[in-house]
Amino acid sequence: MPIKNGMQYIERINRQRLQLWYNGERVNGPLSEHPAFRGLIRTQAAMYEMQCEASRSEDMSYASPATGERVGLSFLPPANAEDLIRRRKMSEIWANYHHGFLGRSPDYMNTALMSFYTAATVLEKASTEYAQNLRNYYEYCRDHDITLSHAFVQPMASKWSGPADAEESLAAKVIETRPEGRVVSGAFLMATQGPTCEEILVLPTPSFMMGDGQVNPSAFAFAVPNDLEGITFICRESHAHDSSYDHPLSSRYEEMDTMVIFDRVLVPHDRVFFVGEERLYDQLFQEGHFHAYAGHHIITRYIAKTEFLLGLLQALAEEQNTDTENSFVSQIVKVMAMLENLKALRLAAETGGTMTESGCYVPALAPLTAAGIQFPDLHEEMLRMVRSISASQLIMNPFEADFNSENQTSLEVYLQGLSSPAKDRIILFRLAWELGGGAFGGRQNQFERFFFGNGKTIANRMYGCCEGLDEYKSRVYHLIGRDEQS
Amino acid sequence: MPIKNGMQYIERINRQRLQLWYNGERVNGPLSEHPAFRGLIRTQAAMYEMQCEASRSEDMSYASPATGERVGLSFLPPANAEDLIRRRKMSEIWANYHHGFLGRSPDYMNTALMSFYTAATVLEKASTEYAQNLRNYYEYCRDHDITLSHAFVQPMASKWSGPADAEESLAAKVIETRPEGRVVSGAFLMATQGPTCEEILVLPTPSFMMGDGQVNPSAFAFAVPNDLEGITFICRESHAHDSSYDHPLSSRYEEMDTMVIFDRVLVPHDRVFFVGEERLYDQLFQEGHFHAYAGHHIITRYIAKTEFLLGLLQALAEEQNTDTENSFVSQIVKVMAMLENLKALRLAAETGGTMTESGCYVPALAPLTAAGIQFPDLHEEMLRMVRSISASQLIMNPFEADFNSENQTSLEVYLQGLSSPAKDRIILFRLAWELGGGAFGGRQNQFERFFFGNGKTIANRMYGCCEGLDEYKSRVYHLIGRDEQS
Amino acid sequence: MPIKNGMQYIERINRQRLQLWYNGERVNGPLSEHPAFRGLIRTQAAMYEMQCEASRSEDMSYASPATGERVGLSFLPPANAEDLIRRRKMSEIWANYHHGFLGRSPDYMNTALMSFYTAATVLEKASTEYAQNLRNYYEYCRDHDITLSHAFVQPMASKWSGPADAEESLAAKVIETRPEGRVVSGAFLMATQGPTCEEILVLPTPSFMMGDGQVNPSAFAFAVPNDLEGITFICRESHAHDSSYDHPLSSRYEEMDTMVIFDRVLVPHDRVFFVGEERLYDQLFQEGHFHAYAGHHIITRYIAKTEFLLGLLQALAEEQNTDTENSFVSQIVKVMAMLENLKALRLAAETGGTMTESGCYVPALAPLTAAGIQFPDLHEEMLRMVRSISASQLIMNPFEADFNSENQTSLEVYLQGLSSPAKDRIILFRLAWELGGGAFGGRQNQFERFFFGNGKTIANRMYGCCEGLDEYKSRVYHLIGRDEQS
Amino acid sequence: MPIKNGMQYIERINRQRLQLWYNGERVNGPLSEHPAFRGLIRTQAAMYEMQCEASRSEDMSYASPATGERVGLSFLPPANAEDLIRRRKMSEIWANYHHGFLGRSPDYMNTALMSFYTAATVLEKASTEYAQNLRNYYEYCRDHDITLSHAFVQPMASKWSGPADAEESLAAKVIETRPEGRVVSGAFLMATQGPTCEEILVLPTPSFMMGDGQVNPSAFAFAVPNDLEGITFICRESHAHDSSYDHPLSSRYEEMDTMVIFDRVLVPHDRVFFVGEERLYDQLFQEGHFHAYAGHHIITRYIAKTEFLLGLLQALAEEQNTDTENSFVSQIVKVMAMLENLKALRLAAETGGTMTESGCYVPALAPLTAAGIQFPDLHEEMLRMVRSISASQLIMNPFEADFNSENQTSLEVYLQGLSSPAKDRIILFRLAWELGGGAFGGRQNQFERFFFGNGKTIANRMYGCCEGLDEYKSRVYHLIGRDEQS
Repeated sequence: MPIKNGMQYIERINRQRLQLWYNGERVNGPLSEHPAFRGLIRTQAAMYEMQCEASRSEDMSYASPATGERVGLSFLPPANAEDLIRRRKMSEIWANYHHGFLGRSPDYMNTALMSFYTAATVLEKASTEYAQNLRNYYEYCRDHDITLSHAFVQPMASKWSGPADAEESLAAKVIETRPEGRVVSGAFLMATQGPTCEEILVLPTPSFMMGDGQVNPSAFAFAVPNDLEGITFICRESHAHDSSYDHPLSSRYEEMDTMVIFDRVLVPHDRVFFVGEERLYDQLFQEGHFHAYAGHHIITRYIAKTEFLLGLLQALAEEQNTDTENSFVSQIVKVMAMLENLKALRLAAETGGTMTESGCYVPALAPLTAAGIQFPDLHEEMLRMVRSISASQLIMNPFEADFNSENQTSLEVYLQGLSSPAKDRIILFRLAWELGGGAFGGRQNQFERFFFGNGKTIANRMYGCCEGLDEYKSRVYHLIGRDEQS
Repeated sequence: MPIKNGMQYIERINRQRLQLWYNGERVNGPLSEHPAFRGLIRTQAAMYEMQCEASRSEDMSYASPATGERVGLSFLPPANAEDLIRRRKMSEIWANYHHGFLGRSPDYMNTALMSFYTAATVLEKASTEYAQNLRNYYEYCRDHDITLSHAFVQPMASKWSGPADAEESLAAKVIETRPEGRVVSGAFLMATQGPTCEEILVLPTPSFMMGDGQVNPSAFAFAVPNDLEGITFICRESHAHDSSYDHPLSSRYEEMDTMVIFDRVLVPHDRVFFVGEERLYDQLFQEGHFHAYAGHHIITRYIAKTEFLLGLLQALAEEQNTDTENSFVSQIVKVMAMLENLKALRLAAETGGTMTESGCYVPALAPLTAAGIQFPDLHEEMLRMVRSISASQLIMNPFEADFNSENQTSLEVYLQGLSSPAKDRIILFRLAWELGGGAFGGRQNQFERFFFGNGKTIANRMYGCCEGLDEYKSRVYHLIGRDEQS
Repeated sequence: MPIKNGMQYIERINRQRLQLWYNGERVNGPLSEHPAFRGLIRTQAAMYEMQCEASRSEDMSYASPATGERVGLSFLPPANAEDLIRRRKMSEIWANYHHGFLGRSPDYMNTALMSFYTAATVLEKASTEYAQNLRNYYEYCRDHDITLSHAFVQPMASKWSGPADAEESLAAKVIETRPEGRVVSGAFLMATQGPTCEEILVLPTPSFMMGDGQVNPSAFAFAVPNDLEGITFICRESHAHDSSYDHPLSSRYEEMDTMVIFDRVLVPHDRVFFVGEERLYDQLFQEGHFHAYAGHHIITRYIAKTEFLLGLLQALAEEQNTDTENSFVSQIVKVMAMLENLKALRLAAETGGTMTESGCYVPALAPLTAAGIQFPDLHEEMLRMVRSISASQLIMNPFEADFNSENQTSLEVYLQGLSSPAKDRIILFRLAWELGGGAFGGRQNQFERFFFGNGKTIANRMYGCCEGLDEYKSRVYHLIGRDEQS
Repeated sequence: MPIKNGMQYIERINRQRLQLWYNGERVNGPLSEHPAFRGLIRTQAAMYEMQCEASRSEDMSYASPATGERVGLSFLPPANAEDLIRRRKMSEIWANYHHGFLGRSPDYMNTALMSFYTAATVLEKASTEYAQNLRNYYEYCRDHDITLSHAFVQPMASKWSGPADAEESLAAKVIETRPEGRVVSGAFLMATQGPTCEEILVLPTPSFMMGDGQVNPSAFAFAVPNDLEGITFICRESHAHDSSYDHPLSSRYEEMDTMVIFDRVLVPHDRVFFVGEERLYDQLFQEGHFHAYAGHHIITRYIAKTEFLLGLLQALAEEQNTDTENSFVSQIVKVMAMLENLKALRLAAETGGTMTESGCYVPALAPLTAAGIQFPDLHEEMLRMVRSISASQLIMNPFEADFNSENQTSLEVYLQGLSSPAKDRIILFRLAWELGGGAFGGRQNQFERFFFGNGKTIANRMYGCCEGLDEYKSRVYHLIGRDEQS
């Protein structure tokens, strides 16, 4: 069961029997035909198809150590810089297909799972079984090309309840242990792409701390199929549309976010990676170098998106006949400079990596964290520029159907550009609207701002990365003759 | 036929037989039942209803000089500061009903028409008939409480074609004069609320200039009923929704923008305000003090919107339990300071007005222009704050129907706030989403940025308002002993 | 002994025998001849001279209720709006002389003392003697036109020491009570203009709190002559210069900041306004409406400075031949808009005032606080614009002496402007340098940012001013149907 | 005559007989003892001393191809990436000595000369003599370790005069050709470090264009000793001071800027690199890859300065006891992220270079230009943070002499920090003042903003570097199905 193709992806998604709710109603029937999901599924099917093309075999897959079959490169633990760059090139192929609009392209969770897998040893201290479960699960996903989503974050209400009344707490927790497995209840926010994946990795920050040696029911990790009994997915409002003319982006790239509720879900023992030991959560992330590996995946997405937006800004300015104005040039060059930053940061991460004890090559964290700090502002600024260049043309755009109505001639005459037919011109501004004014862009913007930790979390991560700080401070002290012991 | 009530408003709108197109299809049937229009029509009907309430008679209407019947206060040419303040209080009542989200609340065009009316004398130089037509039309609108939209701006393509080939030019122009009237062809962008009004005032910037003494076919002004033969309205995508829980704002305040195409429309002579004399366009705006009167209307809307958003920001912060954090306080006080600015600028405009030759009291322009320059940034910043405070809660919100489904209990448990039931909490964030992430807010933001002139236009208007500049410069020169003749 | 003139001001300053230190040396000899003080003293002498001009008598002074002689208008407790406006016009005359560069123009402390005087009643609860001392002192200052500085803030180290070891604490405190008076020790930062004033008002925030009923030695207020035994003034580096060509601003407007050390200073009993009761500090400020009165003084200074800088920006742009460029206009209009804000906020404060129980008219606080929040950013932005317009011309400017050297001809040829002689051009950029690059502007900028409370303090003051917040929030709740009891 | 040491540098500078003017007076006597120059000369002498230390021989010099003696590494034309990195490490040693405050550290002009030298071939088309002159001059500077300044920019007045009256034009030009050389007159702005160098390279943008084939007297390039007859240097105001306690930065790093006037200077023929051919100016810069080589030098200076300021910000925050506050961390991490950018951009430039036809390895231009676009804002922001953290402590700092006066004890008690003696604390804030408030920092800030081209020039340079733009635009067009021929 090697890498899957597009048809296999669709079949597996359709085969699931999810407890999936949209606008108060249970979603039945094949997801690949549902308006909220079909565009994305088609896009991801095309991506899975790409990895099966013979010409891309070397670029996108490698031979499974277990089966010898081709498996996805995003599962590969990099043994050296070349492996890391190979991984990145694979991600680039997909990112340049979705132009960075898929925050949860399947390679994201493949990368995450790979990173935890490389740290399985930390689980051995608690139980060799845990470590083996994680390793087995990684191999299972890799060799079956499982599409994964994840649940890391809990609703605000879960955080207000603590260990004092663990029974009453709303925090997600293991509430029972049975011979067949662990019983879990709780709710998670923002399983992006939940319904369009096959399984879900649940790895929450423990909601409360109990101190060393005590069993913490809110500390656990596991992975299960999406349609296990007791799992319910509740959707937010969909921003997807069908027409690729009227909605060039949301017809293709709209990822659904879901709230996932676990109501006495029985998790089989072999799918449990740990339970009760609260320190293991941090250790998995630290020893697995999750932020470095995920950051390396994400920066390639940032670059693809920035390039697409750079192209869009230039196209819009040409359409508005303002591309040679100083006010435009002085703005777009800031984006160009930021693109140079991102590319350089990726290079620095790739060439400045280090080897772990487990024999993996880990990209340098500081440049990737720097990218993570800066991209949300860049993204917001690029959307602002889309609005600024488009001006009132952002808003007043007819539909494709209008061009097929009896108003066709008028529209073609009055809405033509300097050198572009009206229909070519209007689709460009419809795309601009989706990003700069519409819900698709609004959700993208919020996603970029908050999906990899809020500002405070990322700031602390960056502060912790700056290894030279003491040295820099000592230069100041040296200059002013201040004894450093003081 | 005095001020109309809500029912009359609806009847008149439904009675029209517009050439109205949405997504390639002709819209038939009563607009008040069409999903793209019904929410707004209901809101405006309620507003018209308010002006007919006996208790508001003095606050919202005055006796028509022609009929003695009560007519809308927004038609009143202010004879003194008290009148101006009376007008403002009327606008405040409506603005606090729509919270500033209606950029084209009917009092906007009533004010515009009043301003042009006060300048009717400038038309007499061309023709006493023109002046009389304008005066008659104003009285007609006032005494029948006509709801007006307007067409001022033409598509980009219209601007590229000049007088050299006036025949071929795409610019809107009078193409024929007949005994019954003038025949006009051309296209206009952004007739906001076009379909939900009764008539349209057409007063475009002349697309080209021909020089003194020549007849300029692109210079004209007139007003006609919306459903005159040859007028076609084409809609942009609607952002309206029906549920006031799921979409608290767009279910009420979504104004449609339309492109209006005039295809050989016969405008009766008594509806023509001028034709051919290009200088009259500027004179109407200047002598009518359009920007001062419109600016005075708009600043009240700005204030209502800022107050609403201030309340929203505080409510969101309380819901997120961050309302006492420094990072929040330091942000919201900037909005509070800006609100003080806006209120003070309105006061300065009202108390610093001047009398025109025609006996009208005109508010001071500079403070109002200052408000116009600053509000777009304030608006964008407030939306940014909505996003920042809401964080990921902006995105992941279920529908009202979900609270009525079998998931009700889970949602009520997991989505509750510190002191708010889940359903109360979620509707607040749904509203936040509409403003900070959704299409409703995206369009509002672009509207605020561009609806009263683009940045460059407004900048020049402000620069022209700064009467003290030479005096301030002379203070610098005086200090450095520089002869002012130099 | 009525208002003093310039000569009297100089004589009194020179007559003092201060313990004044500059760069490790005791300053002896007349201050009016010392390079660090003479420019400012000359400027202030001219200001005092102005108030004695017969033509300005009504504008700048009033008849003392005690003596009938003319005393300074900034001492007048306003009984109504007209008085407030009269006060403001007086301040405007001085502010337009120093263009807002004097943060501690004498009317500032006159205003402060007036505000505390109107609250003398609050001291009566502690002692009628305290109240009488304050009233007497106010009358003394008013009738003798005393120039005052003040000491409100203590060094950081003083704040770390608390009541636990009041003996050891570094906080300023009353350390002994003697028949002749109270003995005080401690240090204060930033007595701006300390040496160029006659007396100093000491009114520190109590460094620690001891709770009701206990005597707090760090709570006290008094005023004494500058040259009382035990008072030492230590200067920061002076930024003053002598040549009005080379340094048009710092040759006139450089105010010295000093650290003041009280070493067992004996304060006569009749100069003590309170001792030991920690709550009186807040009460004096609150009941005296210090922030409203001081804010009303300051906003006039803000306006004068903004006008001067607006004139400078325009003059610089004309000199650089960039005054018609969009990039310039789009920047300067933001300053123009802010100037409109400031003027409108002052108007709102003046017309929206309230009467106190003591029969004084107090300007509205919210608009003035809004000005205080916004001006530091405006100021920094204006300096940035000075730099941006001046470009490299900010830096490379010869001295006046160079124009008198054998290089005169070359300089006149090569440094001429489009329509300005080189010498006229260079002095303008020398002034620009002083503001945008030099120490004078650097100190002005920091002063504007921090002199009226740091950002956090001002933010909290603004937040407390926003009386409508609950009402605005209730509008949101009303719209979403949320019960306000919840 | 190999690399020179500190003593040799001082001797050579002192030996010159410059026409140097400061504040209208001719500067005589040794520059190394003049208060405006001695601090900098001491700093640069120490830098020259470093390169002569045996332990740094390999790091800072190489064997001259002509003489075999050790010459400065900044003269080395890099044959490959290793050479480029070697050059950079040399620059790092100096930059970490002057912490990036020397914008015209000698290696800057060494690098510039090297870059022009590698393009000498372009001069051969005009004259083999020109090419040979440039090569000889490069070798002369390299083998004698000549300290160079440069003159590229002319006063504004020079630009207003054109070829129409070349005789009368103020533009610098060759006004006569004599057997001994060319006679040049004109003025140049901003020869930074002019007096502290030995020679000056004059390479101005031609002030006017005359068209192909015509002799353009404003097009020329040459280099001469500073004290050639007819050359006059006029200084701006010095910001240098002597005490390293009171002025830790300006006592060491203040570079003088000068205006240089050429009055009928006779330039020997063998020092002329071209005359009359206007296109050669651009070609020298292009073929010499000046912006790439200079940019590679500069980015190392940026990094050194950013590191120093990062250390300063941290030191200040610790001193203020605010280093763990969110508001501080969220600010400083932005600087940390920018430092990562700069380091990564340098890496990208070094590893992404290309070989020229002349066999040189040129760093990639785009990453370096990106750094140049971003650093001025970063620099201004870092100075703003210095002010923000220091608050009022930026201003009120006594002198070192005050600590030696009778006020010593008071100062030590009241100005002590939490864990720092007062004197250690105050010097830190004095340094902060020099950067954040004083003239030294003001000039640094303006220098960073304008010394490598104004904003518009750099923006166009960046726009020209973005090679992928068409490709990115085509991705957008591909997505919307727009034919690219359209």
